[in-house]
Parts: sequence; C-alpha cells; structure tokens
Amino acid sequence: MPFELLAGGPTGPRRGRLHTARGTVETPAFMPCASVGAVKTLSPQEVRDAGIALILCNTYHLYLRPGHEQIRELGGLHAFTGWTGPILTDSGGYQVFSLAPLRTVTEDGVLFQSHLDGARHLLSPEKAIAVQQALGSDIIMPLDECPPYPISHEEAAGALERTLRWAERSRDVHKESDQLLFGIVQGGVFPDLRERGVQGLMRLGFGGYALGGLSVGESKAEIEQIVMTTAPLLPADRPRYLMGVGTPEDILNAVRFGIDLFDCVMPTRHGRTGNLFTSAGRLNIKGAKFARDPSPLDPACQCYTCRHFSRAYLRHLFLAGEILGLRLNTLHNLHFYGHLMHGTRRAIAEGHYEAFRADVLSRLSDDASFE
Amino acid sequence: MPFELLAGGPTGPRRGRLHTARGTVETPAFMPCASVGAVKTLSPQEVRDAGIALILCNTYHLYLRPGHEQIRELGGLHAFTGWTGPILTDSGGYQVFSLAPLRTVTEDGVLFQSHLDGARHLLSPEKAIAVQQALGSDIIMPLDECPPYPISHEEAAGALERTLRWAERSRDVHKESDQLLFGIVQGGVFPDLRERGVQGLMRLGFGGYALGGLSVGESKAEIEQIVMTTAPLLPADRPRYLMGVGTPEDILNAVRFGIDLFDCVMPTRHGRTGNLFTSAGRLNIKGAKFARDPSPLDPACQCYTCRHFSRAYLRHLFLAGEILGLRLNTLHNLHFYGHLMHGTRRAIAEGHYEAFRADVLSRLSDDASFE
Repeated sequence: MPFELLAGGPTGPRRGRLHTARGTVETPAFMPCASVGAVKTLSPQEVRDAGIALILCNTYHLYLRPGHEQIRELGGLHAFTGWTGPILTDSGGYQVFSLAPLRTVTEDGVLFQSHLDGARHLLSPEKAIAVQQALGSDIIMPLDECPPYPISHEEAAGALERTLRWAERSRDVHKESDQLLFGIVQGGVFPDLRERGVQGLMRLGFGGYALGGLSVGESKAEIEQIVMTTAPLLPADRPRYLMGVGTPEDILNAVRFGIDLFDCVMPTRHGRTGNLFTSAGRLNIKGAKFARDPSPLDPACQCYTCRHFSRAYLRHLFLAGEILGLRLNTLHNLHFYGHLMHGTRRAIAEGHYEAFRADVLSRLSDDASFE
Repeated sequence: MPFELLAGGPTGPRRGRLHTARGTVETPAFMPCASVGAVKTLSPQEVRDAGIALILCNTYHLYLRPGHEQIRELGGLHAFTGWTGPILTDSGGYQVFSLAPLRTVTEDGVLFQSHLDGARHLLSPEKAIAVQQALGSDIIMPLDECPPYPISHEEAAGALERTLRWAERSRDVHKESDQLLFGIVQGGVFPDLRERGVQGLMRLGFGGYALGGLSVGESKAEIEQIVMTTAPLLPADRPRYLMGVGTPEDILNAVRFGIDLFDCVMPTRHGRTGNLFTSAGRLNIKGAKFARDPSPLDPACQCYTCRHFSRAYLRHLFLAGEILGLRLNTLHNLHFYGHLMHGTRRAIAEGHYEAFRADVLSRLSDDASFE
C-alpha cells in the first residue's frame, strides 16, 4: 500500500506515511512549488534541509520549456533537476486556465496558446498523462476542468461531470505502476456536487484524492465548509491533497479535517517580496524599524538565515536588490513551513493537535507591513 | 610581519602568506567583489567553499547605504555580512569617479553626488579612512585620484602628486593597528610617473602596495608594460595588489611579475550573464547546442554546480530567468577562479609556474558565444 495511516481515522487530523518510488513522505506534508524545475532561488540541498520531502513541478511550464521529450531524454525530471526525492506534477490544466492567453475547452481537451510564444497546443487527458510519464514524476494528476469563481450550480455541475469523464480517460491510459495517479474532486462551493465528485472518482479508484478548484476567489469560510464536508467522504486509506493551499492558518485548519498534502507558492513568493513568517508573527523586512535591528529574523528558528544574519542585513540586501536577500528570505520561509509541518505531525502523533494549532495561531499575529 | 614570502623574491612569481586580524590569506589570491556586503548571489559559506579567503567590499556603496555608522553599530562589516574571514575595503574613490553623477575634485577631497538619491557628500582622505575604520575591514585603501584614460603626461603627473599628498594625509590619520593600510601607485601608462609614485609611497611607508588607475581603457600591452616595470620596484616584503584585474589570462600574466592580490567583478558578473569559465575553454550557457547536453559544465570541476547539474539544466534555468541559474553559474565561475589561484600557488611553490601558466592559457580557448 502506498499510504500508511499511523494515527487518526476517517475524520479528524491524520498522521500518515506516503511511500513513493523515490522515498517516503511523512504526512501531513507541504510541497513547495518548483514550477520550472527549481524551487525559486533555492538549491535541492537547501530545500531538503528545510525539512521538505516532496516538491511540485508544473507540467504546463515544463511541457512548453524545455519540453517533456527533452526532459525524458535527459533521464527524467529527477536527473534533470537534481532533486532526488519524490516529485508531484500537476496536469497542466490549472496553468492553462490561469496563464494561457487563449483557451478553448472541448470534450477532447483544452486548446490553448502558449504564454511564451503564442504557439497553439492541445492538452487532452491522455496528453497530460503522457507528458507526466515522460517527466517521470512520482505522483501525477489527471487533467480537470478548473472553472472560475463564482459560477452557477449548473456550470459547476458541468465542469464536474467533464472532470469525471476526463478522470476516467486518464485512468484508462495510466500504465506506469511506479507513478501514483490521484483523482481530483471538483464541484465548486456546492457540497452536493463535491459529494457526487467523490463518489464518481471512488468508483474509478485512484491512488489518492485531491480537492481542486478551490482558492480561486471563494471566502475562507466557503473553503473550510467544502473541506470539512468533503474530506470525510474520501477513503481513509488514501492520501488527501488540498491543492493550492495555503497560509499557515489555512493549512492548520484543513489538517483538522484530515488533509494530508498541501502545496502553495506562498513561502517562496512571499520570500521574494520580503514578507516573512516568524514564530512570533509576520513581518515585512523592508520596514524602517529593522534598519538597526541586530537580532535574527526569528530567534526560535534554526535555518541558515537565522543562524547567520540579522534583520538589519536582510533589510539592507532587500533594499539593495541583492539576490542573496531573496534567497535567504525564501530559505527562511520554506524552513518555517517545513517546521510547521514537523510540529503538526508530532502533535497529531502525540494526540494534542488542537492545542498545537491554537498555540501556533495565537502567535501568528499580523504585522501591518506584511502585504 | 603581516606578509611572509614563502617562495620567489623581488622579481618573478611569488608565493606568500598575508596575515590579517581575521586569518591568513595564501597568495597569490583573488578577491571577489562583495560591493554592498555580499558576493552577488552567494552565501558566505559558498564563497569560502569556492576557495576564497579574502573578499572586497566597496566603501562607496556601504557609505551611502546602509551607512558606515550603522554598520559600526551593528558590530562592523564582519558581523553585519556574516563573512568571518578577512575583508579588504577600497577607499570609495574609484566608484565616486565611475558611478557618481557629479563630482568635483579639490585638494580637500572629492565632492560628489550620490547615485542613489542625489545627496551631496565630501569624500576626503581622512573621511575615507574614518569610514573604513567604522566598517572594521582588515585591509584598507587610501583615497586616490583616478584619472580617466587617455590623459597627458602632465595630467597624469598632477593626479599622481595629489594621490601622494592624499596618501600622506591618509597615513597620518590611520591609527588602527589591526587594519593594514596599503598605498596606491598612480601614474597612468607612464613608467617614469609610476616609478615616482612608488618612491613617494615607499618614503611614507605602507603595509602593502597597490597598482591603481589601470583597466580603465588601456591596451593589454600597456597594462602589462606598467605591471612589468613597476612591480619589481616595490618592496619585496610587502604584498602587491593589482586593482581591478582581471581575466584568468591577465591574472596569470601579472603573477609572472610578482603580483600577489587581484580583484575583479568578472567571475560574478559573467556568471549572471551565462558566461562561464571551464578548464576546456569558455562558453555561454545560452547556446542552443547545450539544450540536450547531459554533461556537467566542466567535468574537471568539483563545485556543487558541476557535481549536481547538467549544461542542459543550467541553460534551461538561465532561459527561464530562474535565480537558481544565476547562483549556480556564479558559484561555478568563482570556484574556477579559486581553483586557478590554488593551482597558481602550488605551481610557484613547486617551481614550475611558467609551465602551469602555458598549460592553462593553451586551454582557455574562446568560444564565440562568450560575450
């Protein structure tokens, strides 16, 4: 079995272990985004040292440049990027819907234009699997239809039904036994559609289940409602992945409902804009109050940044536009996320997750300068 | 004595050891440029791992931002930057002459406008020493007049005489016994002026001697002529520093004439534009021929980049604008320079420097794509 449940059951927080061809992922786990094959600004060694076991690469980006066939020739994504641990790739669908300047959805797939050179491509369910097979990732996602927000129940139902038909086509062409194929539950903010999505996917059977189509504009309450009502419907013996989430609060809240996997650009993107997470709250390193501050970013943190540099130096690097500043910020933020997940896993295993969550949330006060 | 000569004498290549308050520098040595307090894109640990013992920081940049008093308050440049090894700072003069939008030279000093905010500042010889004292660097440079190229013998003589008067004022206010003050020989491309410069400085007495005002437009032959005729005039028991040089060829050639220290932005700047040094010649990683090249940048190199990544991946990162690509390129180039100096020192110690130089130069063939 690729997924082993160590603590928790069908409802509530779960402590698990996801076995892949390239190693084991302790869950709940956070995946940083390595869109084009690199977690932005960081080396594979630094990502590993931040406590990260699994990364996400974007099929859309890699398909367009350098191309999946070229990556296959070079030995696959692991050999190409130097990341030897497990990799999850998405189907490319989400980026087609959010980045491509033109796109037309038909039953066949999505016809889109590259944002790089305007060339036209068809991404079908079969093509998405074939591309990910060429990439050689460990966990792969089927093409789904990602509708915008808000949409009507009828439109959401249409996208869900198409997603289920595409899921079946994806499963039918999926052959690689060492690639774990997940199913993606669509259905917008409508609990009845989410339930129909879960049942449709479970009839087909997948190695794991993802909640998709969220974080596209809904309120936090709407997302929480969907996660709370949908997660318990999923089979307990399969990993559950909440796509594109999120802030530390969002993650801690979703863990309560039994989510095992998360991905988000937040720690890396925020690192590059100077928005930093600390155990005592958030801050933006640009703030004038840090100009003469000799203390580390987060005295409680053990990352390279916090062990060697002051807030004053990080602010100086940021204002001077030095790449090292972007690196050190990103490294710290990713370490914060890695550490958060480590604490989450331990708290679940030790049976005091609610106390852990409350304690972390009480210290995540917002600094007004955090953007 | 701060400088120990291990092999070689008043003429020819020298193997030495420069002792500073923060450690020993084996010479000949190359200093990368850490303009605003960071070797661009790299962490202090990575710089050290590239075989670098000494870095150069720009007083002009640090004086303007974050300010020398702020750095002093934060414990000096070493505590601020996290670089625990020796640091050389320049006087700020060269950047005033090359970067400041307005500048007026008087006997008092140079009145200039900041390129950051247009504010007016006076940099005098005394001020340059005081700023470097606040920075707490290990080797400091006096303010000199850096004339443009070409200039007449008369103009060069004027700049030289002023530089000597400023050198005396600098020496007179220099108090810190753990900061080594160098003298800077000016005199343009005129051997008689260079000789007068050496004699003037030696009368004053400095901890080391630098050849300044070169690499501003002269031909390679002119520079070589000046280095060849001036270096042997300098005291053998003091380190000799050729400022702003240079390419691997320039360094290897100047070592022949007894130069001990070099600095240049070349390895770091070229790294950020994809121009890479290898033991088999130069290349630009953008080249289409590297798109499917699984081999390391330089199979003979032991740096992190060459041990983990292919040319195809480095090209991909560069074309995608990924910061990791700039880092890996810079890391490799700096490692190339560190390794070059290591080989230089060993060859001098073992008495076969000329054969080493000829061998390296024979392999430094230019690739047309190297910019």
